[in-house]
Amino acid sequence: MTRTAVVAGVGPGLGESIARRFVAEGCRVALLARTESYIESLAADLGDAALAVPTDLTRPEEIEAAFEEVRREFGPVDVLVNHASGGAWKGARDVSLDEFERAWRVGARAGLQCSQEALDDMLGGDGDGTGSGDGDGTESGDGGTIVFTGATSSVRGRDGAAAFSSAKFAVRGLAESMAREFGPRGVHVAHVVIDGGIRPPDRAVENPEEYLDPDAIADSYWHLVEQDRSTWTLELDLRPHVEEF
Amino acid sequence: MTRTAVVAGVGPGLGESIARRFVAEGCRVALLARTESYIESLAADLGDAALAVPTDLTRPEEIEAAFEEVRREFGPVDVLVNHASGGAWKGARDVSLDEFERAWRVGARAGLQCSQEALDDMLGGDGDGTGSGDGDGTESGDGGTIVFTGATSSVRGRDGAAAFSSAKFAVRGLAESMAREFGPRGVHVAHVVIDGGIRPPDRAVENPEEYLDPDAIADSYWHLVEQDRSTWTLELDLRPHVEEF
Amino acid sequence: MTRTAVVAGVGPGLGESIARRFVAEGCRVALLARTESYIESLAADLGDAALAVPTDLTRPEEIEAAFEEVRREFGPVDVLVNHASGGAWKGARDVSLDEFERAWRVGARAGLQCSQEALDDMLGGDGDGTGSGDGDGTESGDGGTIVFTGATSSVRGRDGAAAFSSAKFAVRGLAESMAREFGPRGVHVAHVVIDGGIRPPDRAVENPEEYLDPDAIADSYWHLVEQDRSTWTLELDLRPHVEEF
Amino acid sequence: MTRTAVVAGVGPGLGESIARRFVAEGCRVALLARTESYIESLAADLGDAALAVPTDLTRPEEIEAAFEEVRREFGPVDVLVNHASGGAWKGARDVSLDEFERAWRVGARAGLQCSQEALDDMLGGDGDGTGSGDGDGTESGDGGTIVFTGATSSVRGRDGAAAFSSAKFAVRGLAESMAREFGPRGVHVAHVVIDGGIRPPDRAVENPEEYLDPDAIADSYWHLVEQDRSTWTLELDLRPHVEEF
Repeated sequence: MTRTAVVAGVGPGLGESIARRFVAEGCRVALLARTESYIESLAADLGDAALAVPTDLTRPEEIEAAFEEVRREFGPVDVLVNHASGGAWKGARDVSLDEFERAWRVGARAGLQCSQEALDDMLGGDGDGTGSGDGDGTESGDGGTIVFTGATSSVRGRDGAAAFSSAKFAVRGLAESMAREFGPRGVHVAHVVIDGGIRPPDRAVENPEEYLDPDAIADSYWHLVEQDRSTWTLELDLRPHVEEF
Repeated sequence: MTRTAVVAGVGPGLGESIARRFVAEGCRVALLARTESYIESLAADLGDAALAVPTDLTRPEEIEAAFEEVRREFGPVDVLVNHASGGAWKGARDVSLDEFERAWRVGARAGLQCSQEALDDMLGGDGDGTGSGDGDGTESGDGGTIVFTGATSSVRGRDGAAAFSSAKFAVRGLAESMAREFGPRGVHVAHVVIDGGIRPPDRAVENPEEYLDPDAIADSYWHLVEQDRSTWTLELDLRPHVEEF
Repeated sequence: MTRTAVVAGVGPGLGESIARRFVAEGCRVALLARTESYIESLAADLGDAALAVPTDLTRPEEIEAAFEEVRREFGPVDVLVNHASGGAWKGARDVSLDEFERAWRVGARAGLQCSQEALDDMLGGDGDGTGSGDGDGTESGDGGTIVFTGATSSVRGRDGAAAFSSAKFAVRGLAESMAREFGPRGVHVAHVVIDGGIRPPDRAVENPEEYLDPDAIADSYWHLVEQDRSTWTLELDLRPHVEEF
Repeated sequence: MTRTAVVAGVGPGLGESIARRFVAEGCRVALLARTESYIESLAADLGDAALAVPTDLTRPEEIEAAFEEVRREFGPVDVLVNHASGGAWKGARDVSLDEFERAWRVGARAGLQCSQEALDDMLGGDGDGTGSGDGDGTESGDGGTIVFTGATSSVRGRDGAAAFSSAKFAVRGLAESMAREFGPRGVHVAHVVIDGGIRPPDRAVENPEEYLDPDAIADSYWHLVEQDRSTWTLELDLRPHVEEF
């Protein structure tokens, strides 16, 4: 079975590693991000299994159009990675309401909207004409997987990072709520807490041991996709072995 | 010392109990809420120590004006209770982006903005002309207390309540981040997890034991205000003794 | 109403502050600890409301005898503070099995046994001849409060403190289980996470702001005892305002 | 590379699935449990890669002898699964101190002792004659993996299961402490929260969807063993997709 995956918020680093790994496992992968030149060059590198869909995740109409394009090119979505996050690294007195809102829109609101689009494919309608399934067992979809990328600040509000922490908590609350709502209906919702810095793809670092290898992170994302429905994980943490935590 | 307190999001039930208790302890209390008739009647009942300030907490300019009025009438703010929350009780497929955003604005964004206003009074400027303190010890404020009202869904994303859960998580992440940032600077930030239904003020219930008494909750809010700075609580939970949890 | 309280594991510092505060609130307080000279001198200082009961909390027969003496002198127990903890501060490779066991016995096993003794008084029998209540509503006791003293390591296993962390987690698991079992039957079980060093009673410290004031901690213990049964707290944390966490 | 694994507390069900999976991945696997006939029959079925070592995990001298035998037959230990747990399913008033202690000994104390034995192999000595490494970089071992099996009650003390909950919390505290202590020295310590019933190997169940498949659980255990040291997981949860949680 060829699965269709969407990585929302792909960039050099972890997003790219996830996309590469999913293609290597036989998925068709749609790359959603604002930077057109980057995702088109990545898609070209990945070949026919990849599709660049330039999307500003803060704009609902762009997300809607992106999923339409994905369905047209690759069919219904089976796997979604909500990977975007943003936010000025500022304290609660210094962050503006606009910066606060933007961090939440990129992380939580885009995460909800992308999930709604994906759930339409994963659950299908149930023939009652309401446009959404109601869990009565007549849904036509065959399930799927939605993974949210979290951070240390998803579980521990960080001093000096009010907007980032609050948005990351919002994403986690959304993921937990969705896991409880859609697990019984065949959709696996998971949240990964990445606790540490990810090794930068474009420059050497002094102590590489102190960073998470993005390809190794992608192993755990793929493990989540492959988990049997009798043993689904809601949350796992990942960190370098030398990380203090 | 007469303290000035702001209860943002006061209504019959817990908000009112907090306001009454704070007045009884000698505070001047500003009541912020949208329903003008209700808060004016409550203020009239509470006397000179209370001030009704009709405010739509989703409107930044109204929050700004409200705090100006509070300062003009009652002086700088010493205690803030971020008590508002909102959100359609819907699952992640059924909630609209607008409903999702509104729940977050009432809880998290208004909580941030009210806190920013209060922090200006609690921390003061530090004479460096930047308009915000920088923690170098020259701040002129004398500290204060900010309490956020949370719920079961603040710590456990609830099935079928995506917007409410996500907004409540966002508030908790903000509170934790602020506690770490402002504790060392003399502002006590706390988060109360109310785990259960609050006894309704206006009607009898069949099993009153199953509800939290809002006056009893107000005892714990006041305890947080009174805690010595050597022993500050970030989070406590409250529930009826018969609650299953 | 004069309440009878037992502080199991009293010493200079927090245990003593709790005992003093409870006496000041009108309780009769039994002081259980191994160091006879210390608790007798404290009891003499506190007057008729205090009773020194020398007890090695690692010895079940001594705990049993201690509660018999408390009942004989002060009547049935209404409040219990499980305050003892112990454990070599060693890593998992260096701690011996005996040290590991001793830390657990002082914290968790003594905590269970003291609670069993107190629950006999708090719940009473229910007349079915089995010697323990079964929650069918016919129990004769009038409830009570059991507070466990926890630490940072109760919620976060500490590097280099395997025995202490494991024992503190064991205590917290016991407290949570008991809170769920006995809350509906009228016994309030709470767990306090003390996150930081307690100000030493017998010497000056360089930066007193960095320590918790034991008298201030005792305020929160008393608040727990006084909470209305409609709003019981299972867990709260306490730390100095300058603590990094 | 052929790895030597020890499964401490193997039985029909998850322990056996783990052993089978590890053998399939090329490990030599030592099976430690009290029931001699069962583990010998399992070892016979698994062939030369398996070794039955009858061991009562409540007896320190038997654990010591077991690891000696494992080393003699299979060489130094690379992977340890601390899988045993025990405990009467009783409330805090009804459980005896002996039952409480036994649950802790099987889970926490045996977990510590087996880990100490395994760490000797994983870390080696460091040539300073003290018999234990000190993390100064001269240790001779090449690291390894220690996985603890947890349960719902590891993170949520259960009503009516005081001994089980307390022992499971104790195990989790030990695992967290060890993860922080030994991660930087090359040993991956992980804790798996199994949230639900495991499908019984020996009888049909009415609703198989409600159970975790032990072979599928073993997939996640193996994933933990295989994780790159730049991305180690401390904790993950596993549950059936229909589980309410």
